[in-house]
Amino acid sequence: MRFDIFSLFPQVIQPYIDSSILQRARENQLIEVNLHNIRDWTTDKHHVTDDMPYGGGGGMVMKAPPIFEAVESVLGAPPICPLILMTPQGRPFSTAIAKELSALPHIAILCGRYEGIDERVRDHLVTDQISVGDYVLTGGELPAMIIIDAVSRFLPGVLGDPTGAEDDSFSNGLLEYPHYTRPEIFRGWGVPPELLSGNHAEIARWRREQSIRRTLKHRPDLLKNAPLTDKERKIIDSGVDI
Amino acid sequence: MRFDIFSLFPQVIQPYIDSSILQRARENQLIEVNLHNIRDWTTDKHHVTDDMPYGGGGGMVMKAPPIFEAVESVLGAPPICPLILMTPQGRPFSTAIAKELSALPHIAILCGRYEGIDERVRDHLVTDQISVGDYVLTGGELPAMIIIDAVSRFLPGVLGDPTGAEDDSFSNGLLEYPHYTRPEIFRGWGVPPELLSGNHAEIARWRREQSIRRTLKHRPDLLKNAPLTDKERKIIDSGVDI
Repeated sequence: MRFDIFSLFPQVIQPYIDSSILQRARENQLIEVNLHNIRDWTTDKHHVTDDMPYGGGGGMVMKAPPIFEAVESVLGAPPICPLILMTPQGRPFSTAIAKELSALPHIAILCGRYEGIDERVRDHLVTDQISVGDYVLTGGELPAMIIIDAVSRFLPGVLGDPTGAEDDSFSNGLLEYPHYTRPEIFRGWGVPPELLSGNHAEIARWRREQSIRRTLKHRPDLLKNAPLTDKERKIIDSGVDI
Repeated sequence: MRFDIFSLFPQVIQPYIDSSILQRARENQLIEVNLHNIRDWTTDKHHVTDDMPYGGGGGMVMKAPPIFEAVESVLGAPPICPLILMTPQGRPFSTAIAKELSALPHIAILCGRYEGIDERVRDHLVTDQISVGDYVLTGGELPAMIIIDAVSRFLPGVLGDPTGAEDDSFSNGLLEYPHYTRPEIFRGWGVPPELLSGNHAEIARWRREQSIRRTLKHRPDLLKNAPLTDKERKIIDSGVDI
């Protein structure tokens, strides 16, 4: 899968894709990430990419021309792949959208900066808008890295364990169960006996119950759409501690 | 404000805090960010920080002892400040939580990696758990950078424009209005005449209307709690296009 990222600060993205799972995925040619500095497509002497907003107010606005030039010179006009603007105004990113995007061969991401981006970019160039959460950041670079990371995890071969992404939180509509590793006793705190039983059915039952219990406690909103058995749903609805 | 970050991959965080607004905030001593590599607190020859999960299953789990050692040697036992675990199971991060954290003089953030973290860390060391969204990432490093970035924006002096953070999306419960900058005509697309009017009341009215209109279109869920005037709420409830 190919990612093209357009940003004014590509240098903050490079170290992330140079490490860990994403680095391995790039070496194994499972993903290709191309970083493009929008500033390279300015035509004035001072390489200006922002300007004051029409109508006044604080902050600077990213100018439309260098963004159009950058995107069209890399991806053609109109762009050959979806161009996603990272913005708090976009559709909320989720595991479901990560899976959806992982089915595409090629996506491009545009990172905003400063107070905002000229609206004509939104109206006439981008094809999708995604938000990673209800908070405001200095730029779209962290959100872009989130997309690359979360999407790549669904590509075959990227995770060492082929079922890795399927066990994670949200993949089955629930939060993940607790994990324990050695030492068995640490500062007097032990490991739940179920996990030491060697009984696979018992372990699976305990993990499922813990997932539901934890989701009920921390994110009851997720349970509405989680695929539960009738028995599990009845127990939860009755308010009894499972 | 002081941030202490505990991670196995601090090198992916460094370039982000070395750039742009966060770099300036550090130079001006408005924030201090200390990165700690958990691996430095392992005591075995191979500096092992993870191990297989009790009960089996794919993936590796971060061991408790190096994490306790790292945190306690930097922050004391118990830690002198809140220790936040970045996890999909935490409370959902938002502008409101960013403001809440920005009132504290000192926070610490623990970044998970691999399949998860030994549950005894969650039970006996961390004091808060935060999620940046309903998706799964390779580690807590991007979420930690999101916290540092979003929280710092609320500290006095960090943004060039002192009202910057107040105008952003979510700060008034609404999505932000559209921005335009030069050129006035780009590829035949113009700027809304209201913004060129020079009439401040008219510009303010147009921006407010655009914020509401955009929130209604993309995130109607936010309007429930947004502070709207009676007149604005009546127009929205009537279903008329404002």
